[in-house]
Amino acid sequence: MSTACVIVIGNEILSGRTKDENINWLAVQLCDIGVKLREVRVIPDITDAIVKTVNECRIAYDYVITTGGIGPTHDDITSKSIAQAFGVAYGRNKQAEDILSQHYGADMLNAARLKMAEMPYGASLIDNPVSAAPGFVIENVYVMAGVPCIMQAMFDGIKDTLKGGAPILSASVSVLLSEGVIAEGLTRIQSDFPDVEIGSYPFIKNNRLGTSLVSRHTEVSRLEQVRTVIIAFLKHLNGEIIK
Amino acid sequence: MSTACVIVIGNEILSGRTKDENINWLAVQLCDIGVKLREVRVIPDITDAIVKTVNECRIAYDYVITTGGIGPTHDDITSKSIAQAFGVAYGRNKQAEDILSQHYGADMLNAARLKMAEMPYGASLIDNPVSAAPGFVIENVYVMAGVPCIMQAMFDGIKDTLKGGAPILSASVSVLLSEGVIAEGLTRIQSDFPDVEIGSYPFIKNNRLGTSLVSRHTEVSRLEQVRTVIIAFLKHLNGEIIK
Repeated sequence: MSTACVIVIGNEILSGRTKDENINWLAVQLCDIGVKLREVRVIPDITDAIVKTVNECRIAYDYVITTGGIGPTHDDITSKSIAQAFGVAYGRNKQAEDILSQHYGADMLNAARLKMAEMPYGASLIDNPVSAAPGFVIENVYVMAGVPCIMQAMFDGIKDTLKGGAPILSASVSVLLSEGVIAEGLTRIQSDFPDVEIGSYPFIKNNRLGTSLVSRHTEVSRLEQVRTVIIAFLKHLNGEIIK
Repeated sequence: MSTACVIVIGNEILSGRTKDENINWLAVQLCDIGVKLREVRVIPDITDAIVKTVNECRIAYDYVITTGGIGPTHDDITSKSIAQAFGVAYGRNKQAEDILSQHYGADMLNAARLKMAEMPYGASLIDNPVSAAPGFVIENVYVMAGVPCIMQAMFDGIKDTLKGGAPILSASVSVLLSEGVIAEGLTRIQSDFPDVEIGSYPFIKNNRLGTSLVSRHTEVSRLEQVRTVIIAFLKHLNGEIIK
């Protein structure tokens, strides 16, 4: 199964000003196409941080997706930093320039906007149906916008190029029992189903402790088997199963 | 200024099942006490990933805060992995055991719950006023729960021990002009105020493109100076300033 890493580039996330909306959206999308998201990093708009992180991650994972920092302002340094990470030239991409020319027209295409046509040498464009300025791909690194609606439109355009596997399905059972009551039996169930990833997630609802048990596997039939065993186990403990 | 890294440990975030709520909350808190959050990593519940990430980050930053994976179930492997990262013994912490005994009473304190008293040797406890089972600190690594209300209560208990600096304040101006129109002038303002971090964040509102300009500095007076210059600049461009 292919692996992926998402790199969120943006001081605004680290300062707390902006709540990231891209991580969860991408996590769900990657899961749907059977690509395993193995890591997320949130890093600042600092060249050294971008270069180091991209170089670590592009070796470690099949796909690296970055979001943020490809706009026209002084703090948008992602594209230049990616060129530096790959050790390739950085300059005007003719195809990107044409897209921007057509979108803005000669009178509105100023120097700042033209900066959005600057990319690492050898990059291929990622279409931006929302606001024209393209993202790009260089080797296994996909460089996309940070604004969620633009990022999502870009991802929709490239997702068919990612080689995934069978989608990872999940089956969830929530019960009004605390983890401590369930844990021992659940360990046994996990050993009986070593191929299924069983996660246990505590929650608090109306002042009562509960646990969601989430099984993950690519086959529906296998998930049904685990689910049946888990439900029988929880009923044996007199647990109230909800939802 | 002190630096921090947050490590979110949890398959449920990477699979997209759960939307993280801890990153933004911690980012805001750290900012308030003048600790600079420099990186966030989201990693799976896999021992090697935890060991490697913790060891990289505890050297690189003054403070490392982890969330998740300290419960009683089979998939909670954070504490054991942290012991491995530090190369220290892992076992029953007497003080933690006493807290759990008192909370659960002899009849409810089963083996699974006692696992929550197992920690790296030499760790100090972090109080958990919500559900008793403590987090812990070892050197500069703060190991906390993943459930947001528990994590927040734990952080409230330890934040006074973090050595921060002056809080980083921010002043924001939002305008219905696109980044491309503002960028050139904004670059000049940034060079005139090299000590102020000026971020530019595009948004789309009622189908119109806008930009939020956020200045960050520790001094109110300096922020006021930048803000005045930015507003004058935006008015000069006939920009409609909102909120």
